[in-house]
Amino acid sequence: MAVILGVDPGLASTGYGIIRETRGRLECLEYGVIRTPAQDSPGHRLERIYSGLADLLERHRPDRAGIEGLYFTRNVTSAIPVAQARGVILLALVRFGLEPREYTPQQIKQAVVGTGQAEKEQVIQMVRVILGLKDPPRPDHAADALAAAVACMHSSSGR
Amino acid sequence: MAVILGVDPGLASTGYGIIRETRGRLECLEYGVIRTPAQDSPGHRLERIYSGLADLLERHRPDRAGIEGLYFTRNVTSAIPVAQARGVILLALVRFGLEPREYTPQQIKQAVVGTGQAEKEQVIQMVRVILGLKDPPRPDHAADALAAAVACMHSSSGR
Repeated sequence: MAVILGVDPGLASTGYGIIRETRGRLECLEYGVIRTPAQDSPGHRLERIYSGLADLLERHRPDRAGIEGLYFTRNVTSAIPVAQARGVILLALVRFGLEPREYTPQQIKQAVVGTGQAEKEQVIQMVRVILGLKDPPRPDHAADALAAAVACMHSSSGR
Repeated sequence: MAVILGVDPGLASTGYGIIRETRGRLECLEYGVIRTPAQDSPGHRLERIYSGLADLLERHRPDRAGIEGLYFTRNVTSAIPVAQARGVILLALVRFGLEPREYTPQQIKQAVVGTGQAEKEQVIQMVRVILGLKDPPRPDHAADALAAAVACMHSSSGR
C-alpha cells in the first residue's frame, strides 16, 4: 500500500490530489486547490500555499509525491510567480522527508492517457475512470494534480 | 535603532547582509552567502537556503528586510531556479513576521550610489564606504545583499 500526493503548482491556485494504491487498485482520498487572495502580498500568498500543503502532508502522510515541472518557453513574467510557488512546495515536501519527483506535462499525459499529445479533457476523463470517481475532477488544477499522482504511482511501480 | 536584512536570491548562492542603523549611523553586522551543492536535488538545495536564512533571522532578529526583485527579460530557464529560491526566501521572511520589501536593481543602485545606472564595482565601493568596511564586500551576491539592506534602510527612513 502507498499513499501518493500529486501537486500542480500555481500562485493563485495550487492543485493537490491524494491517491492510495492497494495491490494495484487505486482510489482517491482527497483533491482540491489551495487558493490565495490576489490582494495579499506575494510572501503571504506563498505562506498560505506552504501551510495548506503542510496540513495535507500531516493529515495524509504520503509515501511519495509527484509534481508537474515548469516548462514555459515564452512568458517569463507569468513563470516567475509559479516558480516561486513551486519553490515553497518543493521545500514543504523535502521538509516532510519526501523526495519529490518531477514530471513534464507530456510524461503525465503519457502515464494517464497513454499518449503525450492528449487533450486536457481526455486527461480529466481518464483520471475520473482510473480513480473510479463519480464526476470528472474539477477545477483543472486539481485534475492535473491527480494526474501527477497517477504518473508518480506508475513511475514508481517497479519498487 | 533598527536591524535590516538584505537578501540577493540565487539557487547556487544566496547573498545576505545584515546592517544596523543607530541614529543615522550605519554598521555592518554580518554578510556572506548561503551556498548549495549542485549535486543536491532542487528541493534539498531550497531547504538549505531556507534553513540558512532561518538561522540568520533567529540570530539577528531583523526589524525589516529588503530583497532584490527578479527582472529577467530573456532567459526563462535560468530565471526559474532563482525564482524558486526567491519563493522560499519570501516564505522564511514572512514566517518570521517580516513584510519583505522588493527593490529593482535600479532602485538599489539609486539608493546606494545615487544613480540607477551605476556599475557593479561602484555599488561595491559605495557599500564599503557607507558601512565603513575595511575591504570591499565579496562575493558579488553578498555585496548586492548589503546594497539591498542599505536601500531598505533609505526607503524606510520616513518611519
